[in-house]
Amino acid sequence: MRQELAALRSAMKEEGITAWISPCSDAHGSEYIGEHDQCVRFLSGFTGDSCTLLVMEEEAYLWTDGRYFEQAEKELEGSGITLMKMGVKGVPSLSLFLRQNLDREDVPAFFAPLFGAGQGRELTELFESVCGSYRTDLDLPDRVWKDRPARSCSRLWVHPEKYAGESADRKISRLREAVRKAGCTCFFTGALDEVAWILNLRGSDIACNPVFLSWLLLKEDSCVLFLQREALTEGAAEALKGVEIRDYDEVLPVLRALEGEKVLMDLTAVSFSCWNAVREKNRVKDGLSPAARMKCVKNETEIRCMKKSHLRDGVYLTKYLFRVKKAAAAGRNVTETEAVEVLDRMRAGDPEYVSLSFPTISAYGANAAMAHYMPRPETAAVLRRKGLYLVDSGAQYMDGTTDVTRTIALGPVTRREKRDYTLTVIGMLRLMHAVFPAGTRGMNLDTFARQAMWEEGVDFNHGTGHGVGFLNNVHEMPVSVRMRPSADPKRDIPFEPGMVTSDEPGVYVPGKYGIRTENLILCTEHPKYEGFCTFVPLTLVPLDPEPLDRTLMSEQDIRWYNAYQDLVRKKIGPKLTEEERDWLNYETREI
Amino acid sequence: MRQELAALRSAMKEEGITAWISPCSDAHGSEYIGEHDQCVRFLSGFTGDSCTLLVMEEEAYLWTDGRYFEQAEKELEGSGITLMKMGVKGVPSLSLFLRQNLDREDVPAFFAPLFGAGQGRELTELFESVCGSYRTDLDLPDRVWKDRPARSCSRLWVHPEKYAGESADRKISRLREAVRKAGCTCFFTGALDEVAWILNLRGSDIACNPVFLSWLLLKEDSCVLFLQREALTEGAAEALKGVEIRDYDEVLPVLRALEGEKVLMDLTAVSFSCWNAVREKNRVKDGLSPAARMKCVKNETEIRCMKKSHLRDGVYLTKYLFRVKKAAAAGRNVTETEAVEVLDRMRAGDPEYVSLSFPTISAYGANAAMAHYMPRPETAAVLRRKGLYLVDSGAQYMDGTTDVTRTIALGPVTRREKRDYTLTVIGMLRLMHAVFPAGTRGMNLDTFARQAMWEEGVDFNHGTGHGVGFLNNVHEMPVSVRMRPSADPKRDIPFEPGMVTSDEPGVYVPGKYGIRTENLILCTEHPKYEGFCTFVPLTLVPLDPEPLDRTLMSEQDIRWYNAYQDLVRKKIGPKLTEEERDWLNYETREI
Repeated sequence: MRQELAALRSAMKEEGITAWISPCSDAHGSEYIGEHDQCVRFLSGFTGDSCTLLVMEEEAYLWTDGRYFEQAEKELEGSGITLMKMGVKGVPSLSLFLRQNLDREDVPAFFAPLFGAGQGRELTELFESVCGSYRTDLDLPDRVWKDRPARSCSRLWVHPEKYAGESADRKISRLREAVRKAGCTCFFTGALDEVAWILNLRGSDIACNPVFLSWLLLKEDSCVLFLQREALTEGAAEALKGVEIRDYDEVLPVLRALEGEKVLMDLTAVSFSCWNAVREKNRVKDGLSPAARMKCVKNETEIRCMKKSHLRDGVYLTKYLFRVKKAAAAGRNVTETEAVEVLDRMRAGDPEYVSLSFPTISAYGANAAMAHYMPRPETAAVLRRKGLYLVDSGAQYMDGTTDVTRTIALGPVTRREKRDYTLTVIGMLRLMHAVFPAGTRGMNLDTFARQAMWEEGVDFNHGTGHGVGFLNNVHEMPVSVRMRPSADPKRDIPFEPGMVTSDEPGVYVPGKYGIRTENLILCTEHPKYEGFCTFVPLTLVPLDPEPLDRTLMSEQDIRWYNAYQDLVRKKIGPKLTEEERDWLNYETREI
Repeated sequence: MRQELAALRSAMKEEGITAWISPCSDAHGSEYIGEHDQCVRFLSGFTGDSCTLLVMEEEAYLWTDGRYFEQAEKELEGSGITLMKMGVKGVPSLSLFLRQNLDREDVPAFFAPLFGAGQGRELTELFESVCGSYRTDLDLPDRVWKDRPARSCSRLWVHPEKYAGESADRKISRLREAVRKAGCTCFFTGALDEVAWILNLRGSDIACNPVFLSWLLLKEDSCVLFLQREALTEGAAEALKGVEIRDYDEVLPVLRALEGEKVLMDLTAVSFSCWNAVREKNRVKDGLSPAARMKCVKNETEIRCMKKSHLRDGVYLTKYLFRVKKAAAAGRNVTETEAVEVLDRMRAGDPEYVSLSFPTISAYGANAAMAHYMPRPETAAVLRRKGLYLVDSGAQYMDGTTDVTRTIALGPVTRREKRDYTLTVIGMLRLMHAVFPAGTRGMNLDTFARQAMWEEGVDFNHGTGHGVGFLNNVHEMPVSVRMRPSADPKRDIPFEPGMVTSDEPGVYVPGKYGIRTENLILCTEHPKYEGFCTFVPLTLVPLDPEPLDRTLMSEQDIRWYNAYQDLVRKKIGPKLTEEERDWLNYETREI
């Protein structure tokens, strides 16, 4: 059994706690979290990004979803922790499990800042009905985690208006208007990408997400920013004139001191502790954050910039695909990790480069069937002259964020691989060319990407598209293209011009191969039909025609395919060497 | 100003009430209601099925939706009531209007049994925050409605198991299991179609809906039915052995006497008064009714029966379409109402006929553009030898419920009419042939019916499909095919084999024409792909090839079209006269 678990159990005993719950989360509800917040990783050894750990007196359990089953099984071996496979028949959810296994004698506990208000309320209601007492004020892992990394405190920097396209002042006044319209006097958010967007500031407290630890409290006559004072730079301080700065750790006392306000906040995003602090003496209105709603609609400057950064990024990836194909054809036996170094290096050389937007996924053959495969040098596969290779990558630039996936043939592929590759390309093209009226949501649009697959009895088990930030989180709430409704219905908002999402269908056959093609697409007004929208592609990278089975495509699919390849050739071709250009011309030939 | 309004205002004054709200509803949340419950119609003169009336001291307002704007404008003329067009920009919702127009001095009121629990809670919370006091215990319209029709008390009759396919006992024991699984001790429903389904009983308290006024309270060891004792027949009493019968008006006292139970009920469907009665001494779990969930999945007997009734119904409608075409071609100048008498008569002659499933819509030319057009003899249009004619009709048979729409050409049609007719047919065919995995919801499926229209910048402003009861409400909750999420997210459940819905896209051009084609379709397991579903048509009535523009159809659309027409010809042809059959053969020719 893991020592760390034993240490936690001692701490539990000292406090009289019989069940401890740790989520994989931070105080801001972030999807990706800093090293300081990796308590579940410390306690359990599991390195996935999405899970909840329950430690009881004798047993321990970890819930995670299908993306991580294989990884969790390996990493939890010998840990004394039982894996609970979410969504698998017969496996109870955490709350059902708690209801069945806790009784009056139990004293369960979790740390209030790490749970969303909605979740925290659900858990405490459950505890109240089942147990005698419970605690939410202890950070138990902190007591036993001796070499816990310090909380990150990266230095702030300004994202200039020439990229952002709107001043912080203007954003704040638009926010105030939205708060008034919602019948509220006050708006509170702890979502790091929202604060970064509102203030045109960036940091690097979370890898690949250019954000900084902070909260923001906006009233009619004041704007209070809570941050780590050491993070403040001269430039940031200058940009923050007119904004009241309070210490990061003052947020709860300040919220508790609020009185008689009607506070707009998103109870899915705001932490249980912040919600508790506010609701004592104020009315709370649960609503989608107006900052989230505004941020996901890109302004003209952002759109112009994004087109530029995507063009440069497309050149890097096109060059890379050419190299990989060439190396494989030459039998050079490079590994997944070796191959991709070139790509990361090209991006890092860009004058506007900030960081990767997520660690590059470079996956050959069966490895690509694992949706979250991340190659490591010691175990990376060698790229051979056959089968499919998948690369999912992107970067944060001052002028935009990219995220693109291509799957290419390195040699002969099977009939099955051809079919699934073609269905994936068809799906991406059909969504990208969807024409739809105002009011259409992600669940309506998702069908465009899947229907060709469904006709062949094929499907994939992840969302089709996520919102994308502008030099911000590459996964941006709330807009998405997905088959299922959001757990929080208020996030399922209609598409409108200016929204940027990914378009990334795929097919995964465990042990054999994985396919995904991903463009970022921009929602625009339809050029002809009033009240209708469509998309234009931001991503400009060739699709590989080799694994394509033309007989599965409709005439329209073929027209769309050829038009996209043509666009890529015209835009990217002029930026390449002659050798690369010759290859691109061939790669983008009409089918 | 209407006398009835003046009388209501006097009654308001007597009670010190300054604002009265009447919904178009009954104590069971029914979509269609009996004459006794038509208070809004009595007070306002408006005869639509969906509206809310607000009467204040000086002004009065009626909210209704787009389907009824034209009708409401006419009917409210001179009534002293302002029409509030729901969904039109700048028109506040009822709750926003109340928030803006009520103050501390006001005493608003509504009658608690007529509002759903969710709505009632919302309104009373609003009143609490804005006004000094409010009332929910008065039935004011009753005081002023002198010749109010008595509450309907139709006689109960048994729906035999040879049609229903499952005994009431068996349904009750499945319900008990579902209640236990939900962690509850008790289930309460007032939805009339649920009670009718559970007990295999029917009545006729609401026109076209074969249900009876009732409530049902189910516990582990008892099943209590509240009904009007005079409705009880010998047959029904025999069928109800083992069920405890209480008087219809005892429901509130019995609910108030419940104690310490955990009660499962659907707060969208259950009335505000019932919810208040229960929640005092019990815990309430808001959940989709397990009866609704079970009822919408038809069993093998029901499916076999439905196929039979749809075949007979298809014969009647095919004969009718032949007659209408012939009459128009001969220049016989029949009106919309005259024409349809034949159809209603054929159905009424069926040995299993119970009633129409809704009043037949027979609409020629521009009349069909009004989604809820109901012809009256004095104003009915004459069918001429040109343009399009729409008939939307169906019946309740002992062995199933039908609902089918066809639009046919009576002579030359415009290019625009052809295009829109073709897009409508394509939409219906594509949804009917959709292949989709388990977990797919109506919002995903809706896209199949609309995407061909969207590509041409065309859309329609109603749902694509509604659930259909089995000798029960023709609009059955919760399953539906629609573009927008339900107001109550728990109603958006995935499709599964056995569910029956309509498939009815349309195109409406006000002042010109209206097109709709509607089949009922049955969800089935896909014959080849495990875990996938598709639909089969229940409705068997030919589509008119005359207004079809083949050039807009894909090869697959044409294959699907021909296969459906072929099926209709083979199934319906043998039941026709020779003259009719010759016509059907021509009507279903390959295109």
